[in-house]
Formats: sequence, C-alpha cells, structure tokens
Amino acid sequence: MSIHSLKRDQTNLAWDNSIPPVIHIASGDTVTFDCLDASNGQLTADSTKDTVGTINLSLFDQVNGPVYVRGATPGDTLQVDVLSIETGDWGWTAVIPGFGLLADEYTEPALKIWKIDQSKGFTWFDEARGMKIPLRPFAGEMGVAPGKSGAFSTIPPYCTGGNIDTRHVTVGSTLYLPIEAEGALFSIGDGHAAQGDGEVCGTAIETPMKVTVRLTVRKDKPYTKTPHFSCTSAAAPEGIDYYCTTGVNSDIKEATRAAVRNMVEYLTNEYNLDKVEAYMLCSVAGDLRMHEVVDMPNYVVGMMMPKSVLGH
Amino acid sequence: MSIHSLKRDQTNLAWDNSIPPVIHIASGDTVTFDCLDASNGQLTADSTKDTVGTINLSLFDQVNGPVYVRGATPGDTLQVDVLSIETGDWGWTAVIPGFGLLADEYTEPALKIWKIDQSKGFTWFDEARGMKIPLRPFAGEMGVAPGKSGAFSTIPPYCTGGNIDTRHVTVGSTLYLPIEAEGALFSIGDGHAAQGDGEVCGTAIETPMKVTVRLTVRKDKPYTKTPHFSCTSAAAPEGIDYYCTTGVNSDIKEATRAAVRNMVEYLTNEYNLDKVEAYMLCSVAGDLRMHEVVDMPNYVVGMMMPKSVLGH
Repeated sequence: MSIHSLKRDQTNLAWDNSIPPVIHIASGDTVTFDCLDASNGQLTADSTKDTVGTINLSLFDQVNGPVYVRGATPGDTLQVDVLSIETGDWGWTAVIPGFGLLADEYTEPALKIWKIDQSKGFTWFDEARGMKIPLRPFAGEMGVAPGKSGAFSTIPPYCTGGNIDTRHVTVGSTLYLPIEAEGALFSIGDGHAAQGDGEVCGTAIETPMKVTVRLTVRKDKPYTKTPHFSCTSAAAPEGIDYYCTTGVNSDIKEATRAAVRNMVEYLTNEYNLDKVEAYMLCSVAGDLRMHEVVDMPNYVVGMMMPKSVLGH
Repeated sequence: MSIHSLKRDQTNLAWDNSIPPVIHIASGDTVTFDCLDASNGQLTADSTKDTVGTINLSLFDQVNGPVYVRGATPGDTLQVDVLSIETGDWGWTAVIPGFGLLADEYTEPALKIWKIDQSKGFTWFDEARGMKIPLRPFAGEMGVAPGKSGAFSTIPPYCTGGNIDTRHVTVGSTLYLPIEAEGALFSIGDGHAAQGDGEVCGTAIETPMKVTVRLTVRKDKPYTKTPHFSCTSAAAPEGIDYYCTTGVNSDIKEATRAAVRNMVEYLTNEYNLDKVEAYMLCSVAGDLRMHEVVDMPNYVVGMMMPKSVLGH
C-alpha cells in the first residue's frame, strides 16, 4: 500500500467528472490531505464579524482532489476509512446572513473564534461556567464525482456525498460512497472540530485540518445508492456502534423515506431479512437523525441502526 | 404526597378540555395508570396478520385520564417524572395498510408478536442469529388537554404533547408539557417496550403497561411552548444526559425550526446566553432527531443538547 499526499492549494470549487485527477492511486492506498478551512482562508483567528459581512461566499467549501482510484468503475462503492485528523489550533463559527436554518430570524453577521488544543479533547464555550464542547473532528465534505456531466456546486450534499456534514464520520469511522465516474474521483475538505447533527446555524467549529484516509474500491456493495457509514464505539460520539444509511433530497420527507428505504435494502442484502421484517426492525430499533439541514437545496437524513441489534 | 391509580377502562379517544377529570390530585402526587396496548385490546398474543387487516383503527390510541392537577393554570408547565414502568409479557409490531412512513410501498398487513421478559432487558428479533432489541419501555402518549374547545384525535402529537412517541422519555426521564387548561388534564397511554427515533413503520413494540408518574406544576418554566424533556445517563439509550426541546408541526422543516428556536429560548432563559450564542451552541453541540414521523398530520423533531456541554 502506498502513501500519498495532496497540498493545500490542490482544490476545486465544483464536483465535475471532467476535472483532471491530481493523483492516481491503487485501491487500498492512503492519502493525506492538507485542507484550509471552509472559508478558503478568508477567515483567520483575528477576523471579526465585519469580515463575515464582506466575505466572498463563492470561494467557500473548496475540496481537495480529485483522487483517481484505479479499478473504480460506476456501480462500485468507495470505502473511505478515516485514519487520522489533525485540526488547526483555532476555529470559527459564524452566522452568515442568508445562511442557516433560521436565516430569516438571524440576519446580522456574527463570528465566534475558538481556541483548539486537540490533545485536550474539548474546547471552552465559557470556561468560567464550565461550558465546553467535546472535540469530534471530521471532514464535512467527502465525495466522489457525479456520473453526469457538468460542474456542481460544492455547497449542497448529493447522493454521491460532498457536503454531507455528518458528524459521526470521525476517526475510526468508515464512509461508503456510490461510485458514478471512472476512478471515483474522490475529494475532501471542510474541516470541523465539532458539530451537532444538523449544523443548524449553518457553520460548525470550522478549522483547517490534515486528514488521512484509506480509499478502497468495493465491488460487493452495489446496493449503496447514497452515503452509508459505519461508526465504532471508540469513534462514535455516543459510544455506540452504528451502521447508518442516509437519504439526500431537497424534500426532507423524501430524504427521510430514502434513508429508511436504503436501510431496508442494506438489511435485506447483508442480513437476508425480508423487506417487511427489515422495515419493522427500523421502526423498533433504528434512529432517524437529521445530519445536515442547512446546505441548500439538499438535506441529509440518516437511519442509524445500532450494530448490537444486528448481532455484533 | 398521595398515591393514586387509574384503571384500565378509564380512557378516552380524544384530547378535549370538556371531558370531566377522573381524579383530582395535588401537585407532586404520583399516579399509576393501568394501560391497555394501543390497539385498545383488539390485538392479542394470538393475533395474526388477518386480524390487522380487519382492525378498527378508530379505537386506537386510547389514553387513560384525564387527571386534574390542582393549582395548574394556563401558562404553567406540567413536570412529568416517569417513575416506573411494567410492561406486559408480550408485544406486537404491525404494518397497518395506509399507515407508516413508506405506506405507499408496504400495502399489505403484517404482524410480529414478541415475547417480553422485562427483567432480561431485551427481546429477541432472531435468537439463532443473536439479533435482539434492547427494551426501553416508555409511554408513547403523554399529554395535557388543549386550551381551545373541541375533541382532538389522539393519533397526532400536538404542542401540548399526546402521541409524541419520544423514546427517550423512559424511566428516570422527565417530560415538561405546556399547560393550556385549568388543572392540566393529563392523560397517558400507548405503551412501548422499544422504539427507534421515528417509529417509521408506524408501530413500535406495542404492549400493555402499568406506568407510574409524578405530576408537578411548575410556575418557573413559562417559556415551555412544546414538549421538553430531560433524560439522564441511566435512563437514556445512549448513556448521555440530554436536555431536549421539541418542535411539533405538520411541516417537517417548521417542526425542525421550532425545535431549534425552543432550545434557543431555553438557553437564553436558563443559562443567560444571548440568542446568537445559543444558536451557535445548537449548531456545534446540539443534535436534531426525528422522534416521530408517522402520526399524521404532525411530526415531532427534537433538538437534543448534551448536559455536559452546559456545565453539568
């Protein structure tokens, strides 16, 4: 297995299968990406809310890549094992006018700068009052190129991944993405030191990060139609092992329905359940979470099944 | 403090502030309710899917009550501490035609009967394969009468509670409901031995149950506009203490927005945060979950904040 790296400026602002790959790797190789924060370096530890008011949103959410994985063909699944993440020593959270779940109620720019010491495992929200945020670093953007031609914004999430902002895909977790283009054409970015399910104000604790992933082509998961992930008790925020299927859609209800439908498909394929049994299992033991509700026009909803239910 | 009890047949099929109370209690008293399962006794451990096909849905989701709590006036909050739950020794999960998140795709009746031994802590889904469901009993229906006149179906959840089917309100948890009618007029029902967030097929592991709650009038939480709950690490499925605010609406996005808005209001009231700080805190540390997505026309979405974030 080889080890590769991508530099900070090897980025794009679109998902587009015509963008030439930066590197070609073998299935099973690892790649380290040096990623600027999601503002593409426009915000720094010295920025103020005035900076937020004048920021260029069209430069946001650059992704480092694309990486061509040899042997990856449409219909395969790309397994992304998150091996390590090193955040910056600072981060930011902003309210950006026009952005966020309550954008109509929070119309003024706001900015909070955080100090990050990753070794401590948390960052203070208010030290005097003991209010603190556990650090659970992950990459908000992980995706592959779409099969159809054209340049698609990196702001919304898609069925091929991208800005899925799914906080459970931390170090030790594995993401599965449906491959639509030859070579998969994987890219990554949008470092988050911490985020809740939903990312409701529109931003997380945004931070530069170095992230290392192993990319493996899987021929045995052809039912993967949207991002799936597996998280382990060590990595998962709640200390529970989950397998999760997502739905990605511009209609929240349809995203929710797809998440459930995809879990039924996973359970019928991997556990040989019939569809009705699988549907009932989702109802009595699976949890619906809203991973991402602010990157318009698409929502990401997850159906999370504790692995203990499945006999693990 | 006095201890009261309601019998199995002291039920209603509507939320209606004109229904005479069964008992009057003092704030702080406890009440034990003997509840039939949500089919109102139409399904038994010997039922088959044919029974499901001919069942009378208009008898479903009866609630035991109402209980008049002295001193409760509109604008107050009712604190419901769940003290104990004793489930039946069996349960059922059904696919009922026309009901459930994927009702258009699962059109045939189906029924699964479960054996329940509450002392074991789980029930087998498939013993040979080690597939099992952890038992987390709770009452799917907990609510108070609406302020406006009329009889409202017990099927949908409301801002005053009812069929909120929120699996986190297990023994040891506390539910807060906004009081709209004199005496609160609390009722309870819909025993569940286990359920995932969402209850996606339309039913949980439905079971008869004896449930004991303590009902206390709170004058100091006037900002409670929808069900809130607090769950402790011992009771919470993930072993994390959460405070949760919900949104209840016929539009999922509006339910989601309300859940966040209500958490901001809780944080500004109880933790003296400004609104923007509170909104950011929701984004970086709070989780959106879909507690209930099948009891039309209303959805219940929760914004769950780990108490550790708040300095507890």
